[in-house]
Amino acid sequence: MLAVRLEKGKVLLRTSPRPAPRHGFALIRLLCGGICSTDLELLRGYYNFQGTPGHEFVGEVVAGSRHVMGNRVVGEININCSRCSWCRRGLGRHCPHSTVLGIVKHPGAFAEFLSLPEGNLHIVPPEIPLQHAVFVEPLAAACEILEQVSIPQGAEVAVLGDGKLGLLAAQVLQASGARVHLFGRYRHKLRIAEKKGVVGELRGARLPAASYDYVVEATGSHDGLAQAVAMARPRGTVVVKSTVHGAVRLDTAPLVVNEVTLVGSRCGPFPPALELLAGGRINVADMISDSFPLSEAPAAFRRAQQKGVLKVLLCDNGASFPH
Amino acid sequence: MLAVRLEKGKVLLRTSPRPAPRHGFALIRLLCGGICSTDLELLRGYYNFQGTPGHEFVGEVVAGSRHVMGNRVVGEININCSRCSWCRRGLGRHCPHSTVLGIVKHPGAFAEFLSLPEGNLHIVPPEIPLQHAVFVEPLAAACEILEQVSIPQGAEVAVLGDGKLGLLAAQVLQASGARVHLFGRYRHKLRIAEKKGVVGELRGARLPAASYDYVVEATGSHDGLAQAVAMARPRGTVVVKSTVHGAVRLDTAPLVVNEVTLVGSRCGPFPPALELLAGGRINVADMISDSFPLSEAPAAFRRAQQKGVLKVLLCDNGASFPH
Repeated sequence: MLAVRLEKGKVLLRTSPRPAPRHGFALIRLLCGGICSTDLELLRGYYNFQGTPGHEFVGEVVAGSRHVMGNRVVGEININCSRCSWCRRGLGRHCPHSTVLGIVKHPGAFAEFLSLPEGNLHIVPPEIPLQHAVFVEPLAAACEILEQVSIPQGAEVAVLGDGKLGLLAAQVLQASGARVHLFGRYRHKLRIAEKKGVVGELRGARLPAASYDYVVEATGSHDGLAQAVAMARPRGTVVVKSTVHGAVRLDTAPLVVNEVTLVGSRCGPFPPALELLAGGRINVADMISDSFPLSEAPAAFRRAQQKGVLKVLLCDNGASFPH
Repeated sequence: MLAVRLEKGKVLLRTSPRPAPRHGFALIRLLCGGICSTDLELLRGYYNFQGTPGHEFVGEVVAGSRHVMGNRVVGEININCSRCSWCRRGLGRHCPHSTVLGIVKHPGAFAEFLSLPEGNLHIVPPEIPLQHAVFVEPLAAACEILEQVSIPQGAEVAVLGDGKLGLLAAQVLQASGARVHLFGRYRHKLRIAEKKGVVGELRGARLPAASYDYVVEATGSHDGLAQAVAMARPRGTVVVKSTVHGAVRLDTAPLVVNEVTLVGSRCGPFPPALELLAGGRINVADMISDSFPLSEAPAAFRRAQQKGVLKVLLCDNGASFPH
């Protein structure tokens, strides 16, 4: 089968064998994948990654039990042991024995076929278009904020960063009943969330200081954390969504003096994400910047690295869309 | 009156007028003050401070209403407006209009007399020795952890740093029902907390990774935060007590991937601190390294800056203790 491979900073296309059958695992034919910022970080050497990337996907089960066979599915990316205390508490995302699809020791979705435990799969309801379902995984990560932090109805929330994760987080929080102000640098990106009621704030160098009880840091930049802490009111909460390569600089004085809480937040639950997409609550259609067939993965990665570009899709040739 | 003054990195003694009478404020004669790490930071230029420092004290009210007159008191250090939304919510410590005794725009306690609003004062019960009462303010800061984070009975907690705040935090948490492991570099300091049931852990370069659900960072060093985050289990909580001058370096990946929560924590409530001291629950006696009369403040500050020294007291000549 055709598979993308990242190696020494390069995006390569290789022919490799299909994933071998494995008890409890389904074989999935890729319909559509999404290039995530993490994939671009992997390309730059994050996690010393080498192999097939891709963890945002929608596919069709071509081998598996009757519960999933033939269905269009998305999949949770952490492949865990299902036996440790984390797994038993329903927090398999933190299983110390886990591998991670396309990130840690499990070949990713940017290939004609991938393999995942059936327990990781969620069937995509027919009302969600194929190219929207690709957003389930990052949207679940945005939904994770609501699992970790209890935000009162009507509370003002600042989301910092109008990249993909910022746009999804802003829309999820707005849909949950918060009044979201999205701070970003691109008018056209802010408009995507504004369509769902978010207030877009085209930011300059200065951001409002000590003004929000809840701030979501989704800039993906090294300055973002300090900026988010400065925007939080005393006793406020900053949700940290960005992972950036290497260390960031943080003045702990405002954190301590203002007794701000930082909450690191990562992957999240798929069911609420599927529900939001099925209900048309999240504008993901406008977040698709481009779409390429799998065989043009190097070009797709180049496109995804351009400034101002949002989601770039990698689809099997049949499922690709005109652009 | 005699007053200590910090100016351009120097500890000076000056004669200055007593604080002027002010409505709602009591005049307090210093009995005993404690030099805090923050005072040493002020000496180094933190907050661009210049003036009379001192915010840990016990004194006698010599002018005030009948509620406080003649009593031995300790005092909360934030002098707030009592009218804003923070003050009305009982969080005057975060009042945006506040001044801070000996830190921000209010002369401190290292003088023969100081002045504070009567509402800030707490009468010290007779069973607390004078030199122990000096610890109420930093002990309240340790009690603040329990106001912010709910730690289950019997939970294992790591406290990182065997300085003054680490020793107090370890003992407060142990007294609250947690099983505390205190990580420090000095056998004689660890022993102080061990007398109250804390497990002392003489640390080397390696600290246990991902091993605690609760970690208190009280190292006062630039490396402490990253170390504390590394010690926290997935979904764990790190309470940040250290303020260090300038920025610290933090790799946000473990924070996000492990969904760790950081809680900045500062000043705390006096009543539980008084109660703990009155009940003899905290070993503060062994934390007193030295005691000087106010007139020897420069020597006292020099002593407080020596490695391995814990609390240095500054007392009026009558209340000083042999050393």
